[in-house]
Amino acid sequence: MNGRELSPALVIGAGLVGASVAHALTRAGVQVHLQDKASSHAQVAASRGAGTTAAPEPSQVRLVVVAVPPASLAKVIAKALNTYPNATITDVGSVKGTVLADLRATGLDLARYVGSHPMAGSQRVGPLTATPDLFVDRTWVVTPHDTSAAHAVLDVNELAKLCGARLVSMGAAHHDEAVAQVSHLPHLVSVLVAGRLTEVPAEHLRLAGQGLRDVTRIAGSDPQLWRQIISANSAAVRQELAQLRDDLDGLLASMDAAADLTGVLQRGLDGTRALPGKHGLSAVSYAHVVVEIPDAPGALGRLFRDIEAAGVNVEDLRIEHDLEAERGWLSVQVAPDRAADLAAVLTTAGWTVRDHEPQL
Amino acid sequence: MNGRELSPALVIGAGLVGASVAHALTRAGVQVHLQDKASSHAQVAASRGAGTTAAPEPSQVRLVVVAVPPASLAKVIAKALNTYPNATITDVGSVKGTVLADLRATGLDLARYVGSHPMAGSQRVGPLTATPDLFVDRTWVVTPHDTSAAHAVLDVNELAKLCGARLVSMGAAHHDEAVAQVSHLPHLVSVLVAGRLTEVPAEHLRLAGQGLRDVTRIAGSDPQLWRQIISANSAAVRQELAQLRDDLDGLLASMDAAADLTGVLQRGLDGTRALPGKHGLSAVSYAHVVVEIPDAPGALGRLFRDIEAAGVNVEDLRIEHDLEAERGWLSVQVAPDRAADLAAVLTTAGWTVRDHEPQL
Repeated sequence: MNGRELSPALVIGAGLVGASVAHALTRAGVQVHLQDKASSHAQVAASRGAGTTAAPEPSQVRLVVVAVPPASLAKVIAKALNTYPNATITDVGSVKGTVLADLRATGLDLARYVGSHPMAGSQRVGPLTATPDLFVDRTWVVTPHDTSAAHAVLDVNELAKLCGARLVSMGAAHHDEAVAQVSHLPHLVSVLVAGRLTEVPAEHLRLAGQGLRDVTRIAGSDPQLWRQIISANSAAVRQELAQLRDDLDGLLASMDAAADLTGVLQRGLDGTRALPGKHGLSAVSYAHVVVEIPDAPGALGRLFRDIEAAGVNVEDLRIEHDLEAERGWLSVQVAPDRAADLAAVLTTAGWTVRDHEPQL
Repeated sequence: MNGRELSPALVIGAGLVGASVAHALTRAGVQVHLQDKASSHAQVAASRGAGTTAAPEPSQVRLVVVAVPPASLAKVIAKALNTYPNATITDVGSVKGTVLADLRATGLDLARYVGSHPMAGSQRVGPLTATPDLFVDRTWVVTPHDTSAAHAVLDVNELAKLCGARLVSMGAAHHDEAVAQVSHLPHLVSVLVAGRLTEVPAEHLRLAGQGLRDVTRIAGSDPQLWRQIISANSAAVRQELAQLRDDLDGLLASMDAAADLTGVLQRGLDGTRALPGKHGLSAVSYAHVVVEIPDAPGALGRLFRDIEAAGVNVEDLRIEHDLEAERGWLSVQVAPDRAADLAAVLTTAGWTVRDHEPQL
């Protein structure tokens, strides 16, 4: 390997993220030791080639990656600082400020600790789901603190690079505010909307469309994990929730004034445009070509052969299932100037094309 | 045609929904007349085969479908009741109670009026996007009132059937409460979350994942149209917003109590499970097989050929685009017991498979 010497490394916690880091480091030529409170997790990860469950010589360890649940992070990091005197210590928790505060309270020298947060965004868990590619082209936030030593920061930057991730550096509090805005608040709002559905009669739920499904999808995540994440970032999250509450009061107050209500709706539209689209660009309007597909093996294969024959690049796609019939539609997003061509080719090939118009 | 005699029919308003109704009726053998305040709209729809722009003989008209913006519905319906003395009158507005109340205030005999709401769910607009298949297998809510005549109700039921939709019958207030719950509240929540993004620094937005995109997608809809919809259903929407506000206060109060916060998160998970999944079943856990795809014409075609060769039924799929590189991943949902097979076949065929595990 080129770059900094991170071998041997120790990964503590062999769940999805820890085991994936171990796989990536092993692939990069680093000798990886695995530990997990559930030794079967470490054994599973080791048996899949992520490293060894043999204990390392403590003084030899160059890098420790702590990948345990949020509530245990500070304790495990503090112990690692004491046990591995020559190692850079990092963690992969999704909240950084509370961990750092807890570590400061121990009075330990934190020069060798640098927090980080790989944004893998997977809803899956456990070592069986691990893969060395989990972080490829994902954002990996590194959060140096005032007393982080230069070599430790460089080691953690190198870790992110070896995992194929894109490095973003920011302070812990800054990071926590940012994820409260773009991740924790949207998560809790999805939870609140989904939670209300428990009181909605089944007959009403039959009127639900794709919009409700989109809004509530992330509410299907693990409540225990998210309880720890939200609790660890409660100050920033509370602030976001308070602002949302103000916005909600503003919306309620605007309900009788057409211009005000339009303003609220327009602000939402503006917000969707602020969000970066694919490939780092702002959101682009594609055209949708909506094609009926029978819900049977091979139908999509035949359909994509015909799309390929049309020579049109597919920008995005979505399957809409029929609630009752064994039937679905594929919505294919393509460049607006190619939609009519694609629709014509598919119609000629015998497919039922329902729409082929630009998206709003 | 079999069934009730709806010919000649008049469609007032030649936007997406009106023109699509006209296309469907024409295909069913009904003679359709088209009117639109913007005569070019009616002409475009007629030129595409939706009907004729010639004025009908008023006493002959059997069915009038009013498909104008929400704020104009009551006025246009009232005028139609006077102008077409032998016609059943319906509308396709997405809120029913306020229109009915406004009509009652006119003192007109409403026996020939029956409201309806085809849930086409398209974000597209205008007569060019119209298609006779817009309503096929969609829910079409018919909202008879106390004084609707039997023949008028049967005529509107027949209209929904001719359009290929699935009929659901409920009262206007009941309908409005249901759509406030499953459509208007989620829409406004999406708007509020998206609206907050206008105040979030671009650097933070780069940490956003698919979850935020899902939650804010419907906030990208037309603010003017939604202002009319929300205003027309403001009583029911206000009640939903007030309940959401209570839930938000409850969440804020739960932030310091782990068990309470877990309860809020668990309720959200329960809500996602209450939502009907595809084909009318409850949501099923599928396995995800995540495959890297180059962003180029034909890649998906080759990939689906290989999936087809594996003989595995694709239940759903999603393209995740990389924010910076010309690269994407296709997440394919399949039955859990087929995921490992599919991953093996695709790996053998040279694809990079990142995950193949059950969804949480």
